[in-house]
Amino acid sequence: MFHLNNIKIVLCNTSHQGNIGAAARAMKTMGIYNLVLVNPITKPDDHAIALASNAADVVTNATILNNLDEALSDTSLSFAMTARKRELCKTLFTPKESVKPILEATQSGQKVAIIFGSEKNGLTVEELEKCNRMITIPANPTYSSLNIAQAIQIVCYEIFSNSYNDSDSEYLNDFKPFIKLASFEANQGLLNHLKHILHTTNFYKNLKQTNRKLQHIIAKSSLEQDDIDLLRGILKHLDKKSSKETT
Amino acid sequence: MFHLNNIKIVLCNTSHQGNIGAAARAMKTMGIYNLVLVNPITKPDDHAIALASNAADVVTNATILNNLDEALSDTSLSFAMTARKRELCKTLFTPKESVKPILEATQSGQKVAIIFGSEKNGLTVEELEKCNRMITIPANPTYSSLNIAQAIQIVCYEIFSNSYNDSDSEYLNDFKPFIKLASFEANQGLLNHLKHILHTTNFYKNLKQTNRKLQHIIAKSSLEQDDIDLLRGILKHLDKKSSKETT
Repeated sequence: MFHLNNIKIVLCNTSHQGNIGAAARAMKTMGIYNLVLVNPITKPDDHAIALASNAADVVTNATILNNLDEALSDTSLSFAMTARKRELCKTLFTPKESVKPILEATQSGQKVAIIFGSEKNGLTVEELEKCNRMITIPANPTYSSLNIAQAIQIVCYEIFSNSYNDSDSEYLNDFKPFIKLASFEANQGLLNHLKHILHTTNFYKNLKQTNRKLQHIIAKSSLEQDDIDLLRGILKHLDKKSSKETT
Repeated sequence: MFHLNNIKIVLCNTSHQGNIGAAARAMKTMGIYNLVLVNPITKPDDHAIALASNAADVVTNATILNNLDEALSDTSLSFAMTARKRELCKTLFTPKESVKPILEATQSGQKVAIIFGSEKNGLTVEELEKCNRMITIPANPTYSSLNIAQAIQIVCYEIFSNSYNDSDSEYLNDFKPFIKLASFEANQGLLNHLKHILHTTNFYKNLKQTNRKLQHIIAKSSLEQDDIDLLRGILKHLDKKSSKETT
């Protein structure tokens, strides 16, 4: 997913080293590597690197800049993250809604920035005004305080999880388990086997209704061939036991 | 969104206080309040509460249990979180795919559990086998290590962000079929009944493997109480037939 390289995460005025590390980790798990720090209170230190765990490379490769303009200069689309919902009348996207424009831009080679403000106050109005879109994360109205790494995780997750569908469908195979459902015939075989036993052991009260229910159960059960082999093994075993009784 | 009260987040064998606090915060931002701790290494302390920030209530109200069975007993749907992709062939959902069955269950009043394993090793195979679905978060194949609070944030975010759209439009309930899955206890009852018969009729070659497979089949089969009643009726009937032979 090369196009993810066209995305950068921009953190403005970040205070806590731990948040820089956790942000890097959240980004890298979702295949996004470009971190830009605008005026961090201190440069990333060992604590940030420790918190980044195996995403230390994202921290050590981070670009450090003095102002947001430099960070935005080569981008065609910039999304400001905000928890404020009403006071600004810029177009407000949810993370889900932002995915389409972001992928359209990155897949055509354009750069996109997603900008996060300080832990305490978020982005200033001046910073917000420089961006051309806004994203807000839907959250509990009585407690909407996501920390910065959690917010980055959600936004990057939406981008990542929506982008492998389109561009790298072979990656999907890597990710989906290999489940091969049993054929209709195999399911019917199981059903008939069961019906046979119930018939020979005089189980039936309402034959038609019972058979319909059994077919329904088998049909919805996502059985694989292995499962059917085991179940038919059990039926064969119980059949032998109970038919001995009648002979 | 009252139906979110039907969801519980279950953490098994959690070691770090900080993770319990961060998990609580991630949950509450997405409107989910029920936290269950199964065998935490230590009970939540001040550090967990500090990390929870304004979600301290979720930590102090957490239920602490000794085993996973107790946590699952009143649930009809249980999702095990896993990063493993190939070794188990239970149906694997992405968080996005899990939303529909979760909301269908919770909106019809059924309880749903989402289960997370220890930070170091995730869920054990035994724990996984007790759940009837699995969720895996799509992630960077070269670095897929989300910490537990990040994973909880993503799953809860998907549920929350998809449920405020749905719950408003009540007409949805009109054409949704009312499926009420049997409880974990009812499924266990069926499994134990079957195990009992197989034991008394000397079916077993490899007891442990067979039981695991049977548990797997039952867990994935979306059985309703009606189905279980029918299947247990059949088992009782066959049991009588085969036990006559031995007496």
